Amino acid sequence: MKTMRILILLFCFLLSWPVLGMAAPVSEETETCLDCHRLVTPGIVANWEKSRHAQITPKEALKKDKLARKISVNKVPAKLAKHVIGCAECHTLNPQIHKDTFAHNGFQVHVIVTPRDCVTCHAKETSQYSKNKMAHAYQDLMGNPVYKQLVETVIAMPQIQEGKLRQSPLGQEAQADACLACHGTIIQVKGLRKKETELGKMSFPVLTGWPNQGVGRVNPDGSVGSCASCHTRHSFSIAMARKPYTCVQCHKGPDVPAYKVYSVSPHGAIFKSQAKSWNFNHTPWVIGKDFTAPTCATCHASLLVDENGNMIAPRTHQFNDRLAIRIFGIYAHPQPKFPDTSVVRNEQGLPLPVSLTGEPAVKFLISKDEMQKRRQRMMKICQSCHSQNWVAGHFRRLDQTIKETNKRTLTATKILLKAWQTGVEKGLPQKGLLFDEPIERMWAEQWLFFENSIRYSAAMMGYDYGTFAFGRWYATKNIQQMRDWLRVKGNALQKK
Amino acid sequence: MKTMRILILLFCFLLSWPVLGMAAPVSEETETCLDCHRLVTPGIVANWEKSRHAQITPKEALKKDKLARKISVNKVPAKLAKHVIGCAECHTLNPQIHKDTFAHNGFQVHVIVTPRDCVTCHAKETSQYSKNKMAHAYQDLMGNPVYKQLVETVIAMPQIQEGKLRQSPLGQEAQADACLACHGTIIQVKGLRKKETELGKMSFPVLTGWPNQGVGRVNPDGSVGSCASCHTRHSFSIAMARKPYTCVQCHKGPDVPAYKVYSVSPHGAIFKSQAKSWNFNHTPWVIGKDFTAPTCATCHASLLVDENGNMIAPRTHQFNDRLAIRIFGIYAHPQPKFPDTSVVRNEQGLPLPVSLTGEPAVKFLISKDEMQKRRQRMMKICQSCHSQNWVAGHFRRLDQTIKETNKRTLTATKILLKAWQTGVEKGLPQKGLLFDEPIERMWAEQWLFFENSIRYSAAMMGYDYGTFAFGRWYATKNIQQMRDWLRVKGNALQKK
Amino acid sequence: MKTMRILILLFCFLLSWPVLGMAAPVSEETETCLDCHRLVTPGIVANWEKSRHAQITPKEALKKDKLARKISVNKVPAKLAKHVIGCAECHTLNPQIHKDTFAHNGFQVHVIVTPRDCVTCHAKETSQYSKNKMAHAYQDLMGNPVYKQLVETVIAMPQIQEGKLRQSPLGQEAQADACLACHGTIIQVKGLRKKETELGKMSFPVLTGWPNQGVGRVNPDGSVGSCASCHTRHSFSIAMARKPYTCVQCHKGPDVPAYKVYSVSPHGAIFKSQAKSWNFNHTPWVIGKDFTAPTCATCHASLLVDENGNMIAPRTHQFNDRLAIRIFGIYAHPQPKFPDTSVVRNEQGLPLPVSLTGEPAVKFLISKDEMQKRRQRMMKICQSCHSQNWVAGHFRRLDQTIKETNKRTLTATKILLKAWQTGVEKGLPQKGLLFDEPIERMWAEQWLFFENSIRYSAAMMGYDYGTFAFGRWYATKNIQQMRDWLRVKGNALQKK
Repeated sequence: MKTMRILILLFCFLLSWPVLGMAAPVSEETETCLDCHRLVTPGIVANWEKSRHAQITPKEALKKDKLARKISVNKVPAKLAKHVIGCAECHTLNPQIHKDTFAHNGFQVHVIVTPRDCVTCHAKETSQYSKNKMAHAYQDLMGNPVYKQLVETVIAMPQIQEGKLRQSPLGQEAQADACLACHGTIIQVKGLRKKETELGKMSFPVLTGWPNQGVGRVNPDGSVGSCASCHTRHSFSIAMARKPYTCVQCHKGPDVPAYKVYSVSPHGAIFKSQAKSWNFNHTPWVIGKDFTAPTCATCHASLLVDENGNMIAPRTHQFNDRLAIRIFGIYAHPQPKFPDTSVVRNEQGLPLPVSLTGEPAVKFLISKDEMQKRRQRMMKICQSCHSQNWVAGHFRRLDQTIKETNKRTLTATKILLKAWQTGVEKGLPQKGLLFDEPIERMWAEQWLFFENSIRYSAAMMGYDYGTFAFGRWYATKNIQQMRDWLRVKGNALQKK
Repeated sequence: MKTMRILILLFCFLLSWPVLGMAAPVSEETETCLDCHRLVTPGIVANWEKSRHAQITPKEALKKDKLARKISVNKVPAKLAKHVIGCAECHTLNPQIHKDTFAHNGFQVHVIVTPRDCVTCHAKETSQYSKNKMAHAYQDLMGNPVYKQLVETVIAMPQIQEGKLRQSPLGQEAQADACLACHGTIIQVKGLRKKETELGKMSFPVLTGWPNQGVGRVNPDGSVGSCASCHTRHSFSIAMARKPYTCVQCHKGPDVPAYKVYSVSPHGAIFKSQAKSWNFNHTPWVIGKDFTAPTCATCHASLLVDENGNMIAPRTHQFNDRLAIRIFGIYAHPQPKFPDTSVVRNEQGLPLPVSLTGEPAVKFLISKDEMQKRRQRMMKICQSCHSQNWVAGHFRRLDQTIKETNKRTLTATKILLKAWQTGVEKGLPQKGLLFDEPIERMWAEQWLFFENSIRYSAAMMGYDYGTFAFGRWYATKNIQQMRDWLRVKGNALQKK
Repeated sequence: MKTMRILILLFCFLLSWPVLGMAAPVSEETETCLDCHRLVTPGIVANWEKSRHAQITPKEALKKDKLARKISVNKVPAKLAKHVIGCAECHTLNPQIHKDTFAHNGFQVHVIVTPRDCVTCHAKETSQYSKNKMAHAYQDLMGNPVYKQLVETVIAMPQIQEGKLRQSPLGQEAQADACLACHGTIIQVKGLRKKETELGKMSFPVLTGWPNQGVGRVNPDGSVGSCASCHTRHSFSIAMARKPYTCVQCHKGPDVPAYKVYSVSPHGAIFKSQAKSWNFNHTPWVIGKDFTAPTCATCHASLLVDENGNMIAPRTHQFNDRLAIRIFGIYAHPQPKFPDTSVVRNEQGLPLPVSLTGEPAVKFLISKDEMQKRRQRMMKICQSCHSQNWVAGHFRRLDQTIKETNKRTLTATKILLKAWQTGVEKGLPQKGLLFDEPIERMWAEQWLFFENSIRYSAAMMGYDYGTFAFGRWYATKNIQQMRDWLRVKGNALQKK
């Protein structure tokens, strides 16, 4: 009977483990936060309570086997080591650097936790992410005069003035509702304002560009990026970041149809069919055991091992160190050397990695050797589930498709250049805007929507997007239409 | 040993609970139905057996704690109280009112169970739903001459007659396959017809407009609406109605892209990643415990409490009593005062809540005060998981985007008006149709597809749909195209 | 105490069942494969280990109740009967027929396992599939001169030559990235090539058209089709093939929007809400018990019974034997008699099942009687969950919509014919290409995108796709645009 009782006790204990786990020590400061916030923002607190942050102290986390660790420093500041990571641990870190710090019930609290805060425990990831184009997504867009013009022509207000159509750009708040939602806003502190709350009058910082969770957000502490873009507040979950639903937030549109392509690919089909029995929390992530088809994270970020513990790929938050070619762009091209791409200049002096007629700006792009290395890393992952022969065939076809799309873009560009030369629309030669007239928009759709879609389809085997759905059907149709529209519009203008 | 045996018995008992639960008393009438229908429609019976209706009697349901109740009357007719709700309980209720009642194996059965039947136990929900525009969706569309023209121009047959393109509207059965699938058909009884069945010849009513599950269906008992639109037959599940997959049935198209926007929003990402561990059946629905990100129902319908049982929002089936502004429309505008919007008249006398040039028909719309109240209700929900500051910023930006979209629609409208003035296309001035020519369609897409999409994107943070995917890219491009097409087509016509 | 111990042992035994199941006997040959491939392709091995193939021997499988069997022969070759189906069992079968057989560590291995291999155990399914149009998808596309032209105009390279736009078709490798990804490539063996591998230099066959998993793949053993299109490697799962995520791989695009339509249908909504508690492995598949709403497989393929074991539909891999009408096409028409549709000729001699002006090529299409039979089979499935009256109404409306779409296509065709007659674009009369000019593309979109979409919407109740999303909005708009564009372009050409 005694043995039985022990067994039953053990069973109950195991069942209650997650609940007992909650008993991990919470700091006094965080307890103070929780006292009120359990009432005023119950969802945040409940979400956090389910997070790993709430369940383990850094001190305990450091005892884990190296590959199993989610923490990437060898030592955590003594003050932080012995309690779980709660409200106060993050929101009161480095108060002097944060321009959004404000006095709040006796604490110096800042609103926006940034990579400069997260670096305390996640140094390696933060450092890698700083080399990721995504961290520089604001500058890469708005610091590039061509792309800035694209933004300002798209996020714009056309109005009829004196019988003519005039178009004026809208400001950051409108951009924040579109491009900058993903690219990130600049968050600035404009003083403090008193507000009525459930617990009486209180002061809070006035922030412009907020709310925003863009990957390249420019934070009030001067840092760039937001870890919460993928590790959603306040669960900061690795499981969630490993699921494609995280990526879909910015990668569904016709410009970067990564999720859409994935969702019709064999990998996506397997994910959707079988993921409910996969382990998205296990670290390192074991191919075949924890999952049987890749998600976005598998190929682009995660630390992968096989069932015997052999390393297949180390973790990276740079994301393009397994990628040789950037398939997104006017033309596909070797990955840029540096994550801040606003400094790139092509042979025409435009801030683009490739000239308008297709010549890459080689000195800003990675070398053939580096391309080879990065592709090898990716191929090694593919070869976990596909034969070498299969993988070679896949990449051979992808390379050919990339050439095809670049060549077709050149044809579209030639039609655009002719429209400019003949003055049917006004562009570079007339110092006109690049994206404000119909043929210009058709040209932009050629590469931004159609050729990009075809390349993503080829890369990830989601072939509907290489065929009818914004694929070759539209790519070849669009060029016919550009040609005919140029003729018809030219004729109409001549008449006038 | 004895204790052990008891424990094991208890364990077995718990395991068999759901099965034992099925033993809830079924009425004799329903047993008769089941006898045959288990054979002829096994799927319906199996579905019903898994429903809550099959597992609890109203008498037992009334004993539940008030907030936990799914039943909203204080007393149920004695005849119904002591058996579970089965076939006969609903399909033989109020036989005299139902024009679709027919004699069927000794019962007076009606085909279509309506809100007037459901009201017996769900009085509050039915009453709320009667104030929901959705209940009036048929009249709001087909009883409005402008929208009726839209339907008849879209659901139409263009034909070449004597060398000219003529377009004629199609009837209700074609409309039932498109607009009325969601808005609801009129269901009429056209006598009885004998049919061969597995169990011999039988008579059934001949119904026009059937099948249909539209939210504003006009039923043979004179009532409007269909509870089964969201609480799908024959499980009538609250869990299902709480999941966005219910709403997607009518809210995916470019006109009301609510689901698409949600699916790329942070809320959608969390839902898709984590919902498998949420509790969609628990009532009241506990924020943070039962779920950690909102679905459609959370914000627009559900009874919400926090973990301490504090009420965050009462249940509503009106849906717009947490909404200040109607973001769907030619122009966004304050919510209409009454759910039957076909009675609205703008200053031009058209049945629209806003004039063609943007002035709201204020006397048909809710007041500033009421708007404030409704927004407060929504904000209270947001503030469960977001700071007050965050929420204020979100709504400030949304308001600005709404203004932006209205202003852009005005520009498009001015181009349309010019097309009509110059006679390039025929519209209001010529007493022509509003939606049957290319510039008219472009104008309609401006608000119906693009500006609506931008507003939904801003409201629910699904920014791809505010940017490239039917967002600002198309909104600004479309206006350029309208201008150029007007010029080109005008030129071609002049020539003739 | 003894009883307790036995109970606990039993419990442990049950828990370990899946693991013990793995102890099913693996052949010596397969063990040899696994020795290396566990290292070089760990994902494949892990995937296979979870498969049914790895868990049961054919001998054991043959003992199952007939309806529960996944194997459809009465006897399996002795050599294969006593081991589970592993690497060697499939990849070394019929080595003499496979042109892709190569010497590999002492085995004669072939790369591509084909239906001619699978037939060994799955004879009935393979035979049915050979009557499925899908098995002939390569020939049905590329062996049909009209469709081949469509492929070659879409998968093409437009280039400016001497100031003119010329378009040239791209080859099979580009097609493999688009149309042939689903339709299947021709896989040819071009000798052997030595490659460096993790285990030293090895020879592998050089294959063109590889990788490819298209449903109508032309295999190196002369067979057509790929079972792995739906039963994904290397789990070959029946559960996966029963989920719509398998079908989405080829049926999402605007041409065949089956998945999109399903995903907004009531069936799709129920699937997405409730499928996590369904049993996708059980055979035969029990309506109401194993699932409560159909997936693609339910209606088009699966063996279905009710809870009492009554047969509702036998398994089929032909897929159209429950379908009377082919709703995909220039015009919807009765299903073709034979799966190789490239032999069909319409009254104009074109390889199309219907003439350009809508007359069906009756002698190549199934009879009214056969149509009736097939529809009855489908209706029987519908009637599991819907009343006879409901089902009749559904199909009546579908038939009407099919007529509507055919009639609208005729109008679009008349505009196209006029464009050709007046020489605005060059087509059949001028022996020009059919799909290379704007009005021709608009015409193709009329049926390929819009009318198809409307028909799929009507068939599966995903009404957004019959209304705004590529539905009647676009169908009626497109015809207006064709008319106006013909006029405007004609005018511009005249001018020149």
